[in-house]
Amino acid sequence: MTQRIHDVLINGQWRPSSHTSEFSPTNPATGEPLPLSFPVSDWSDCDAALSSAANAFAELRKRKPEAIALFLEKYASLIEADKDGLVDIANQETGLPKAPRLADVELPRTINQLKLAAAAARQQSWSMPTIDSKANIRSCFEAIGPVCVFGPNNFPFAFNGISGGDFAAAIAAGNPVIAKANSSHPATTHRFAVLADQAAKATNMPSGLVQLIYRTSHADGEKLVADARLAAIGYTGARTAGLKLKSIADQVGKPFYAELSSVNPVVFMPGAFRDRLDKLIDEYVMSGLMGAGQFCTNPGMLLMIDSPESTKFIEAVTAKYQASAAGTLLSRSVETSLVKSIAILKNAGAELLTGGTKLDGGRCAVANTVLRIRGSQFLGAPELFQTEAFGNAVLIVVCSDLNELAAAIEHLEGNLTGSIYSDSNGSDDGEYQKIALALTHRVGRVLNDKMPTGVAVSPAMNHGGPFPATGHPGFTAVGIPASMVRFAKLTCFDNVRETRLPVVLQNANAPHAWRLVDGNWTNGSIV
Amino acid sequence: MTQRIHDVLINGQWRPSSHTSEFSPTNPATGEPLPLSFPVSDWSDCDAALSSAANAFAELRKRKPEAIALFLEKYASLIEADKDGLVDIANQETGLPKAPRLADVELPRTINQLKLAAAAARQQSWSMPTIDSKANIRSCFEAIGPVCVFGPNNFPFAFNGISGGDFAAAIAAGNPVIAKANSSHPATTHRFAVLADQAAKATNMPSGLVQLIYRTSHADGEKLVADARLAAIGYTGARTAGLKLKSIADQVGKPFYAELSSVNPVVFMPGAFRDRLDKLIDEYVMSGLMGAGQFCTNPGMLLMIDSPESTKFIEAVTAKYQASAAGTLLSRSVETSLVKSIAILKNAGAELLTGGTKLDGGRCAVANTVLRIRGSQFLGAPELFQTEAFGNAVLIVVCSDLNELAAAIEHLEGNLTGSIYSDSNGSDDGEYQKIALALTHRVGRVLNDKMPTGVAVSPAMNHGGPFPATGHPGFTAVGIPASMVRFAKLTCFDNVRETRLPVVLQNANAPHAWRLVDGNWTNGSIV
Repeated sequence: MTQRIHDVLINGQWRPSSHTSEFSPTNPATGEPLPLSFPVSDWSDCDAALSSAANAFAELRKRKPEAIALFLEKYASLIEADKDGLVDIANQETGLPKAPRLADVELPRTINQLKLAAAAARQQSWSMPTIDSKANIRSCFEAIGPVCVFGPNNFPFAFNGISGGDFAAAIAAGNPVIAKANSSHPATTHRFAVLADQAAKATNMPSGLVQLIYRTSHADGEKLVADARLAAIGYTGARTAGLKLKSIADQVGKPFYAELSSVNPVVFMPGAFRDRLDKLIDEYVMSGLMGAGQFCTNPGMLLMIDSPESTKFIEAVTAKYQASAAGTLLSRSVETSLVKSIAILKNAGAELLTGGTKLDGGRCAVANTVLRIRGSQFLGAPELFQTEAFGNAVLIVVCSDLNELAAAIEHLEGNLTGSIYSDSNGSDDGEYQKIALALTHRVGRVLNDKMPTGVAVSPAMNHGGPFPATGHPGFTAVGIPASMVRFAKLTCFDNVRETRLPVVLQNANAPHAWRLVDGNWTNGSIV
Repeated sequence: MTQRIHDVLINGQWRPSSHTSEFSPTNPATGEPLPLSFPVSDWSDCDAALSSAANAFAELRKRKPEAIALFLEKYASLIEADKDGLVDIANQETGLPKAPRLADVELPRTINQLKLAAAAARQQSWSMPTIDSKANIRSCFEAIGPVCVFGPNNFPFAFNGISGGDFAAAIAAGNPVIAKANSSHPATTHRFAVLADQAAKATNMPSGLVQLIYRTSHADGEKLVADARLAAIGYTGARTAGLKLKSIADQVGKPFYAELSSVNPVVFMPGAFRDRLDKLIDEYVMSGLMGAGQFCTNPGMLLMIDSPESTKFIEAVTAKYQASAAGTLLSRSVETSLVKSIAILKNAGAELLTGGTKLDGGRCAVANTVLRIRGSQFLGAPELFQTEAFGNAVLIVVCSDLNELAAAIEHLEGNLTGSIYSDSNGSDDGEYQKIALALTHRVGRVLNDKMPTGVAVSPAMNHGGPFPATGHPGFTAVGIPASMVRFAKLTCFDNVRETRLPVVLQNANAPHAWRLVDGNWTNGSIV
């Protein structure tokens, strides 16, 4: 079969990459490479994309926000129209089920994000306009400049570098995007880029608004991040690679928004087990094995206090993990990494209750895995036992009492989420209070009686958290418009003449944006 | 004269420092050391302060915001009552005039900041509560944890580590503060700490709420920044030291808010010179020499287009710089650094029109200095010509035409401010448009027809800007409540039971905070 090397999208043109090597994605359901070939770009591709993005940014700053909204809406409609094709190719590259996952959940979410971003761009409240009318000082967030988005492996649509949350947020804030495809689903990313390019041309956007590179060498990736033409980076992926790139961005004071890793601790208070043990077993297993555990918010660590109920919970979970078919993992690399993480936990002293090994055959898969340790073991090596086992594996920490549980929580690293289940009738509210503040301090989102999987696209969402879950505890990667402010700079206009102000800061407030005027929020005009 | 070594304030106690060496501040008006001695703390002081701050934070999280407001108000009143003493000692240590500067401008500003911070803490709108009532997802900013504040040399009151803007913002957001005194005014800082400690005790605050260390070794300073008990850092000061500490904080994903350096370009359009040349000469000289130029927002670089008016402007400014008495610099170190920066600019090819040398005698002072280059010189070595000459020196860049001016602006580094003067009648609005977007993109605050000195404490202020002016372009160091969010983490409460929510997220909205509820800002309750 012919393996024509795919073109890159640079400066509004599909063109052959300046590359020295190529790669093919693998179908994780078979373990076989797909008959597709993609280039590993060299620096000249990056350089051309950066220059084009810089030009696009200069041009974009002269456009009205409405233009960006129209682009995003056009793009959303093209995605909708190409749904079947996108689902097919993503299924081949990721092994994720066509339905409900890809077709009925992730694609609608992706389209919804783009539409919400369009509305936010148009309405401009995201820019947090703040006006001191007496002093004639006015400020708002403005576009920061070209953004590079590194998409993760686990959401080929909703976090894709050229269609996902970071992309939507960066574009809606007024920035060109250079997308770096995830190497595990380049064909899906290519298909999105075709649609994005069509939408950009149909809405007369500058030619460098959206660009696509599939892969670079590590050295060129680092050079790209450091380049002065690039203003910010959105990165979702592995911790080691992310931290390396972050350190480069940090040296030049460039915002690097990283989502790195999280074990998402779930605490079951004794009252919850007394209240509804069977329900909790089902609720946990459903969440823990969903998508073969390959969610940023997968509940990878359960904490509980030793009791007859906790023993029963663990036995039941173990049995259900044994009885359930192991899901397909996203890639051989995820499989390898999961087996390695399980080995680290075992070597540190965790007891393997089930699973732990790669399944036979070509499919990328590891047996559903349950590991158990005592609270005292956790306290002896808290860092080691927080090794993320990305996939269908869970570590259960059984504490001897509430004090040990509280101590374990004090040793948690930063996480995206932390959940606490307790008695519906509030009988254990006192115990809840003993751990809730400490857990809340260590996570971006605290949940009650709810599993962390499922990240609602809500203005009140925080998909973020203290290091090492992300690189800064003040920002969310999900939730329009809050996620947009990451790709913006704060600008103050001091005594600037009315006609020279951004429209959103002018007295008339044409977009009817919410603004903080002299201490009060209003969407009215200043008279 | 006895030189008793001053105690440090740790865990609510004034106690002898565990130190190996000591230092004395200098009176810059005489160049002589003051008869005062301060310890260079070793690690055990830092360690004790960190532990106490961590305990204070745990305790503080149980208190109501009202408690913090009462502390800040009590502290403000104690400062007010000790005004004369504070002004005396600050005058001795910094050479800044007692009046109007210290007594009539900076101290009232400091007191005002603390009161505004108290009001913001009480009212809680700063925490940006956001509620999705249908999904029952609620988020807000919460205290981040113990903060270390490194105060700068140039504002012994308003940016002091234990009384200034970062201090007020960090405390008001609910965080304990470890203050690191600036070595040029330790006695002033000590005097504030006495008052802060009194206020903390009078309002029953946890004993580690406010702590003071004067100085550490570089190694211990770095260890302090890296320590897991410390959550964030506010740093205002020299670029080299700041970047070193920032890199350490970055490695552990800890917010490091740095204000580093800025030349604050001021552009005079030809129309402005035609419109009001004499007025602009006076306006510039007043701003440029104010406080011997030792402001973060001092206009250190002027850009203009060659014309008879620009020649006249430069001649007049040079004459006025020659005729004005040189102000006292804050320290010998500022003097040395200024002479060095002037030499760098001269060696790069700048023409010295006046000044350039240290004044005779013990006083810390350099002759008022004007340097001039052509736009083409600037474009040949833009980085070198942006060397900050902190103090009473200015670099004038004379461009051949508008295109060269626009090119020069494209080569500006990140700055706190950028000003553009143009014709009052708008005759040069077209030329303004050719440079305004590019300048705006490179600064935190853009001004029209106004000098950048004078940073209003306004909610709409941005005292920040792109790197290297600061470490992140999205945050301001001045302006309550916006500056508080730096010392906070975003926390989302997902399905959390009503009584367990922070008060500001509960339906009743007892503090009447402004909240974004289902897309609309309101200070009402949810019914």
